Amino acid sequence: MSSLSDFARRATELLGPRGFTCDPDLLEPWLTDWRGRYHGQALGLASPSTREEVAAFVKLCSEFNVPIVPQGGNSGMSGGATPDESGKSVLLSLRRMDRIRSLNPASRQAVCEAGVILQTLHEAAEEHGLRFPLTLGGKGSATIGGLVSTNAGGTQVLRHGTMRAQVLGIEAVLADGQIFDSLTALKKDNRGFDLKQLLIGSEGTLGIVTAANLRLLPAIGDRVVAWCGVASIGDARKLLLHFEQALPDELEGFEVVPEHCLDAVLAHLPGSRAPLAERYQWHALVELATTPADAAALRDKAEAALAEAMEAGILLDATIAANETQADQFWQLRDSIAPAERAIGPAIQHDISVPVERMPDFIEAAIPEVEARFPGVTGVAFGHLGDGNVHFHVLAPAGAARGEWEESQGKAVSRHVHDLVAEWGGSISAEHGIGQMKRDELGRLGDPVALSLMRSVKHALDPKGLLNPGKLVPLASQAASA
Amino acid sequence: MSSLSDFARRATELLGPRGFTCDPDLLEPWLTDWRGRYHGQALGLASPSTREEVAAFVKLCSEFNVPIVPQGGNSGMSGGATPDESGKSVLLSLRRMDRIRSLNPASRQAVCEAGVILQTLHEAAEEHGLRFPLTLGGKGSATIGGLVSTNAGGTQVLRHGTMRAQVLGIEAVLADGQIFDSLTALKKDNRGFDLKQLLIGSEGTLGIVTAANLRLLPAIGDRVVAWCGVASIGDARKLLLHFEQALPDELEGFEVVPEHCLDAVLAHLPGSRAPLAERYQWHALVELATTPADAAALRDKAEAALAEAMEAGILLDATIAANETQADQFWQLRDSIAPAERAIGPAIQHDISVPVERMPDFIEAAIPEVEARFPGVTGVAFGHLGDGNVHFHVLAPAGAARGEWEESQGKAVSRHVHDLVAEWGGSISAEHGIGQMKRDELGRLGDPVALSLMRSVKHALDPKGLLNPGKLVPLASQAASA
Repeated sequence: MSSLSDFARRATELLGPRGFTCDPDLLEPWLTDWRGRYHGQALGLASPSTREEVAAFVKLCSEFNVPIVPQGGNSGMSGGATPDESGKSVLLSLRRMDRIRSLNPASRQAVCEAGVILQTLHEAAEEHGLRFPLTLGGKGSATIGGLVSTNAGGTQVLRHGTMRAQVLGIEAVLADGQIFDSLTALKKDNRGFDLKQLLIGSEGTLGIVTAANLRLLPAIGDRVVAWCGVASIGDARKLLLHFEQALPDELEGFEVVPEHCLDAVLAHLPGSRAPLAERYQWHALVELATTPADAAALRDKAEAALAEAMEAGILLDATIAANETQADQFWQLRDSIAPAERAIGPAIQHDISVPVERMPDFIEAAIPEVEARFPGVTGVAFGHLGDGNVHFHVLAPAGAARGEWEESQGKAVSRHVHDLVAEWGGSISAEHGIGQMKRDELGRLGDPVALSLMRSVKHALDPKGLLNPGKLVPLASQAASA
Repeated sequence: MSSLSDFARRATELLGPRGFTCDPDLLEPWLTDWRGRYHGQALGLASPSTREEVAAFVKLCSEFNVPIVPQGGNSGMSGGATPDESGKSVLLSLRRMDRIRSLNPASRQAVCEAGVILQTLHEAAEEHGLRFPLTLGGKGSATIGGLVSTNAGGTQVLRHGTMRAQVLGIEAVLADGQIFDSLTALKKDNRGFDLKQLLIGSEGTLGIVTAANLRLLPAIGDRVVAWCGVASIGDARKLLLHFEQALPDELEGFEVVPEHCLDAVLAHLPGSRAPLAERYQWHALVELATTPADAAALRDKAEAALAEAMEAGILLDATIAANETQADQFWQLRDSIAPAERAIGPAIQHDISVPVERMPDFIEAAIPEVEARFPGVTGVAFGHLGDGNVHFHVLAPAGAARGEWEESQGKAVSRHVHDLVAEWGGSISAEHGIGQMKRDELGRLGDPVALSLMRSVKHALDPKGLLNPGKLVPLASQAASA
């Protein structure tokens, strides 16, 4: 214990009273993930405000062998930023590192510290007639550091890629406290291994991301948002291919919503109404965007593409949002699926991907299979069809008790869904990461060669195992015993 | 020696007589790089024809501690595929693994084995109305495995990125002979570290790439190629920004050619003539491309953009190629700079990048500095301005003896150029890689933290150091003694 009080004293000296605390009241809000699924303990909360402070603090942790759990906006989906119950680790919050160090409109680059909130970056870019082409539901709390560390996705991946595609350079503190600085953005640089790629998506297990140089794009001149009714998920896929062919540079998003989900949203969302008069088994939400120069022509092109699709029998009906308000309403229907479902009853969620062209067949095969295996459940799949990524939710039988049902059935349901995904050559985590939630499943289903490579890299970069232990990297014994 | 004959016997058993040879005549052509700068020795040449053969052979090498030098088309620029003089290593040619395993037009993906030649892939894609958006001078010999392993660039990087951006998945044999298979292309997959990124660009030092899943794009409907005369490299940069703004989705390439280089080409290339009537200090070669749907409008847009640039005083004169033949002629002028220079006299070449927006200032500062430091030389910079990457050549004083001058001055000139690049936050290898040519310079100038990370990763993945030893990764002692 005296060693721990030594640690706390040294940490306070290093970071000042604002930068380090052991006060349980100040720690409490950060010990539980935002969905309330995971809860842990920590011996203290460090909130450094510069990269040098992060480096010095990580060195201190290494000296005292104190495990570090890095945390950004605490809006992750897989418990990756929540410490375990041991109380032996320290929370390292990056929230005070919240400066946009530079925003260069000519080179369209912004160097953001890890604690910059996504929405803040959106607004800063907007002031310069630019945009940052990644967005997601948690944009008001998610931080750049967390988004980089989890290689976040969202609704614009189809056109612009995940966070990895936005990152031009990063700065990170390594396990031994050294600062890896590759912030200078070179479009071409073949000086060896691309080390930043290793840190992106590593969930704080290989280093602490303290800043990133991010690419910006010209602001959107105009967008066209269409709500489409189709007969099947197969036709939705054909519609996607049609848009990819007809408007390759304008297609910005392509989301699918099954009838069941739309009904749930309409029942849940006061004053909402279905965009189309008739009922359809599947809906596609299509967003097209263009730069100011071509704004005028975009709506004509969209209408022509929709007419062609209808003529080809792929599309049954469609409506284009008349204005921005209506466009936002269409998106609100899509974004309200998760809360609408939560209001109805218990559900077990999966964030999965398979090769894009196989997704329709997967959905049509997997839903009946899950429903047959777990009588009374309803399987729904919605989301980013354009990325081969859907959120595959299994809704409890009517009357199932909240909490109790997930507790008793969750593991079996998820194992079954993940087994199906593995059979189809897919991923059990398309965009939400592994964290603590899926680590054992990754150990069970991951390619042994890839897992062994991951462990080698982890050991090489973090030999003491102090960086976010228990997250992401399955232990060798787990894989072996699975 | 008996151990080596054992090795050769076992290798022949494994790969058959076509798959393994120690015949000096058969080895000879592959012991020298194509530019004739590097020459080495090898104890044998292995040419496996399947990934399983590669895996078994790598295991054998590990058993006998035989270093492996992987080789594709032997068209690299940095000696990365040439063995050292010791004769202790074995050449591992991937040329017999030359199947396109699949080409899926719907998902626009091609799974190519390492030995597939770039031009073969171009032609296969074309048959399906598609294209593979990376090309370079050596396309008739460069292989997919080599292009992946060196993260190759070329003239379409501005729009489509380097090889890294084209790779959806890879298959590689690791140092212990295990096969890492991530060929299945998932658009979104957050199951831990993105290990394929580590292998891309690692020049065979972390694993042997045996296949890659590559993205294809719709074929070009039309292209517009313009030759522009500008007053300065700064104006060339302004013209680039203008095109990026006006035609962001169409701009495919933007190359710069200084007056000196154009003169050299015109003198060297029989029947060639300057595209513009007047003389200009700098020229820009602009390529715009579009899908068939928008082909008709492209020329009008290009003319409008050029007219605006001229009105703004950025552009002095320009001509649009009247047809494909003339477009090819414009590109031939650009592609003939290197041979034209070689015909004139000795030169020392550098493949460098700095942040895109700093390139004009860099060129204007670096050329006079090099010319002052080495009296009589001429500095020229040409190439991929849009990528912040130019080929910076230092031409010998008139009358200098070929071979002798490079021998006596090369190292000093390159050190000076590289020091300047480092000062400007740039890279001493933008697209040609490190190989054996620049390893010591990387050790001298590289960020010590990045170098130490590289060594950790190398040791973790190749603990015996048998994969392409002496290439890319600077030794710890080198860095320390530099």
